[in-house]
Amino acid sequence: MPIYNAPMEDIKFVLHDVLGAEKLTEIPDFADASADLIDQILEEGAKICEEVLFPLNQSGDEEGCTWKDGDVTTPKGFKEAYDAFTQAGWCGVSADPEFGGMGLPALVNTVMQEMICSANFSFGMYPGLSQGAYEALHHFGTQEQKDTYLPKLVTGEWSGTMCLTEPHCGTDLGLLRTKAEVDGDGYKITGTKIFISAGEHDLSENIIHLVLARLPDAPEGVKGISLFVVPKFMPEDMRRNGIACGSIEHKMGIHANSTCVMNLEDAKGWLVGEPHKGLKAMFVMMNAARLGVAMQGLGIAEVAYQNGLAYAKDRLQMRALDGVKFPDKPADPIIVHPDVRRMLLTSKAFCEGSRALSYWVGMNLDISLHHEDEATRKEADDLVQLLTPIVKAYQTDMGFEVSSLAMQIHGGHGYIREYGVEQYARDARIAMIYEGTNGIQALDLVGRKMGAHMGRYLRRFFHPVQEFIETNQTDEALQEFIFPLAKSFAKLQQATAMTAQKGLKDPTEAGAASVDYLRHFALVAMGYMWIQMVKISQEKLTSINGGGEGNKEFFEAKIKTAKFFFSRMLPEADWHFKAVMAGAESLMAHNESEF
Amino acid sequence: MPIYNAPMEDIKFVLHDVLGAEKLTEIPDFADASADLIDQILEEGAKICEEVLFPLNQSGDEEGCTWKDGDVTTPKGFKEAYDAFTQAGWCGVSADPEFGGMGLPALVNTVMQEMICSANFSFGMYPGLSQGAYEALHHFGTQEQKDTYLPKLVTGEWSGTMCLTEPHCGTDLGLLRTKAEVDGDGYKITGTKIFISAGEHDLSENIIHLVLARLPDAPEGVKGISLFVVPKFMPEDMRRNGIACGSIEHKMGIHANSTCVMNLEDAKGWLVGEPHKGLKAMFVMMNAARLGVAMQGLGIAEVAYQNGLAYAKDRLQMRALDGVKFPDKPADPIIVHPDVRRMLLTSKAFCEGSRALSYWVGMNLDISLHHEDEATRKEADDLVQLLTPIVKAYQTDMGFEVSSLAMQIHGGHGYIREYGVEQYARDARIAMIYEGTNGIQALDLVGRKMGAHMGRYLRRFFHPVQEFIETNQTDEALQEFIFPLAKSFAKLQQATAMTAQKGLKDPTEAGAASVDYLRHFALVAMGYMWIQMVKISQEKLTSINGGGEGNKEFFEAKIKTAKFFFSRMLPEADWHFKAVMAGAESLMAHNESEF
Repeated sequence: MPIYNAPMEDIKFVLHDVLGAEKLTEIPDFADASADLIDQILEEGAKICEEVLFPLNQSGDEEGCTWKDGDVTTPKGFKEAYDAFTQAGWCGVSADPEFGGMGLPALVNTVMQEMICSANFSFGMYPGLSQGAYEALHHFGTQEQKDTYLPKLVTGEWSGTMCLTEPHCGTDLGLLRTKAEVDGDGYKITGTKIFISAGEHDLSENIIHLVLARLPDAPEGVKGISLFVVPKFMPEDMRRNGIACGSIEHKMGIHANSTCVMNLEDAKGWLVGEPHKGLKAMFVMMNAARLGVAMQGLGIAEVAYQNGLAYAKDRLQMRALDGVKFPDKPADPIIVHPDVRRMLLTSKAFCEGSRALSYWVGMNLDISLHHEDEATRKEADDLVQLLTPIVKAYQTDMGFEVSSLAMQIHGGHGYIREYGVEQYARDARIAMIYEGTNGIQALDLVGRKMGAHMGRYLRRFFHPVQEFIETNQTDEALQEFIFPLAKSFAKLQQATAMTAQKGLKDPTEAGAASVDYLRHFALVAMGYMWIQMVKISQEKLTSINGGGEGNKEFFEAKIKTAKFFFSRMLPEADWHFKAVMAGAESLMAHNESEF
Repeated sequence: MPIYNAPMEDIKFVLHDVLGAEKLTEIPDFADASADLIDQILEEGAKICEEVLFPLNQSGDEEGCTWKDGDVTTPKGFKEAYDAFTQAGWCGVSADPEFGGMGLPALVNTVMQEMICSANFSFGMYPGLSQGAYEALHHFGTQEQKDTYLPKLVTGEWSGTMCLTEPHCGTDLGLLRTKAEVDGDGYKITGTKIFISAGEHDLSENIIHLVLARLPDAPEGVKGISLFVVPKFMPEDMRRNGIACGSIEHKMGIHANSTCVMNLEDAKGWLVGEPHKGLKAMFVMMNAARLGVAMQGLGIAEVAYQNGLAYAKDRLQMRALDGVKFPDKPADPIIVHPDVRRMLLTSKAFCEGSRALSYWVGMNLDISLHHEDEATRKEADDLVQLLTPIVKAYQTDMGFEVSSLAMQIHGGHGYIREYGVEQYARDARIAMIYEGTNGIQALDLVGRKMGAHMGRYLRRFFHPVQEFIETNQTDEALQEFIFPLAKSFAKLQQATAMTAQKGLKDPTEAGAASVDYLRHFALVAMGYMWIQMVKISQEKLTSINGGGEGNKEFFEAKIKTAKFFFSRMLPEADWHFKAVMAGAESLMAHNESEF
């Protein structure tokens, strides 16, 4: 049976030692969010993830959702788990106190998202989608809309969806056909939406759909799209609205989450925000949602790693290459084998490094929204804008990769449903696709973020890295880490200059570089996190060796894992650098018929 | 609905233009195997793959195998397809004419394996396993055993299995517990075997199990394992034997192939080969079986690529970055986008390069077994020994990777069962695990093959590469290909020297290098294939431009794809080179409790 234990020691290390999250208390909105309070809440969160959500993960996958006559039934136990989850207030952790939320930093929610996805990816999507609807209404809704919907979304009595995709348009929302016509105090909306996660289910009393549609006078393309709120049941009298689930998809994974075809037939809806500005509204929410998907990548990698590790310690097979390690056992546990360690350490170095990286983004998201000082807000927002596509794409790619490594560590047992790890790979795979495919993330990075404000976003990251390297380059104890980081960072700057320059003349060049460039960037960002963690761990060890408190083994392991990252994982950047520098030519040479 | 068209033009190009397979007719056993005959047979094979096996692939996955009271039912249509397949003689293509086979080169079978796995991976495993049993009996059986079993295996009336794995031992067969005791003219065998592909099903009249077990006087470990033939029904009177299927596994993929727990209770069996030499017998067959698995990797990549390509040409989404390409359509097909092309070209360059590489291995397998000259046989065998673990691991890793790319190209549709591509990823994943995990392949390469006969195996590959580079280094038209190949090859030689030297002192070093070393090697081998294909294509184009016959576009595309390979894929080797050179230290530093 698979296991999951929330990695609380590492989570606290990142929050407090690496990021110094207590500085968020300087922001008046978060004055009460002390380290102790955050830890206490997360300990509670870990408990519900481990004890309530995780035990339903395999059975939920096995049973899946079922559709009958427009109703969707979630797997056994999901309703009770949802009630426990919502009644404990987990839907409102970072929500506005005005509407019943706890008003804690989004960072707390980011951490929760990691743990929830480790425990039960499919389950996590239900409250995850509600949060998207909450954000849309909170940012763009009228006071009446907020008062009507937000309190119920915050308690979880009602849930939410985002209805964007149509059969002929996913990435390209300009092709959207769903129509909205004036109808009394609102609109009547008609069209078909597909791939609507949590579009229909039996967990909540009502489902609040945020729907993209076109007004009659709308210009063509993306500039003619408006956002509407379309409740399943009318808030005033719970009459059924004209939106219904036509069927659910049969998918590779996330079986316990319903992926719905939603048919709208004169469904009553109300405009959210300005007419024709729906896409702008979507984009404002996008960063937060994409960070949430990044957390799914990390969460699934963490649980896959934990299970690979447990198996590697337990499974006896062959003797260590340099001699018997456990003579009293019929064979050595496979964790003695170097290649099993390579797979485990790849997973571990990813999880710990990306935990630091994505929590850093989460903390900056809080600063960008709540800090009193505008310049500070803007600076934090720049960093969030820049790093969000990077963590979304890199962490979801690696979530799938690490799940696959966990399968490989399990050998034949990894392929069998009973052991639970193959589910992680099947579940993880969707995160590379939805909320903008990872290719779209890369285009966002090179197309929108790289050139924005004359490279201002980039400088928010490049400057601190540069500064760290310069400040610490004579630190003996950091030499073996600084040297490879500096080299890879220099190449990243070179790749940036090349891509920006060529891309200005020919956007095809930027597109051709995009995915490799993003991966190179992610590896450097990971390196920057890892070197900071090394420095902190060295300081902690000095303190511990001098009689201070702390878990010596934890900090020693950090430095060892960093060595693995810098010697074995960071060199991947060399490949992507060369691919970027090769330019678009070899990609664009083939005629269609030559493929 | 997914599509599959056997890539006959490329298959013929590799067989005839690249490998000159007609030189096999110089071997008396293959005197009749003219290019025309081989082409004709493969055209027939393509037809059965496209028309009979492929249409059952999705329905077979959906329905799966079912177990009831020891019997296994295969999905609807599989029995009829198996009958059509066997009656057309496809089980005996490369089998010995003495037992009713066609006696064609194994290379023909290798090509068929690719096409069968493209069409229906699960189906292909049934005849694939029979072939393993055929090989074991053909090499090591008594004349009586051969006469009893081989003719029926060749017609496919009977099928076969390999019963190796037990619950506590997969890779480490030394831990094997199944027991054989003398019983009349044979043995009675008792034990439990797991993960037995095709262990029970309703396709053939009888199932011939090749079972590893221990004799009472057997030494411990791998030197005490013997091989037995255990038929499901006694050949003389078709009485039921004491071997039965206790259950079947629920797996990530290959649902239409039964993966069985086989219980042996005093099952009657006969020794195959010498007592205690069962593992040796397994190893002799291993290379052929591992080449078969490599073909599964290529086969699944090919069909995934074809479907990704079809979708990319069909799906309209966004406009090309450098301007509208199809003004009459609401958007451009996504094949205009550079990153979609990167995914397609990665797939295409892998399929075409590895087709050349693995057919080359297949042809050398024929030479190694059938050539009249012993030195020629040995030389070919050396190359097969060296390259088999490389193609098994690399091609199955990439089979999974390319399937995942096909999903990514499909966006959300790639995750939905209906479109068929997610099945390719689920099916492909097993090939990285079975027939020796890819980590075991890498250990085979660095542990057994690298040092064998003072590096003789290595020289069989390094010398021709070196020679090609030296002979062609002044060829203007090859410059852009030779330079990166020579650089990567030099690094491979450096990595080889390092690994061999360090590995001699400490086998942990060889183990730490193994997987990265294998991947580096595979990329250089791919480069060697691609540069040969470039040279041939250039010659063909010269001939065509001078009025000769040939498909100009085909050869131009080859050169374009080669450019992609050398500029975008070969640089991956730099990463693995650095990882190898980093040594074992960072892998072995963690205590168990530090993970």
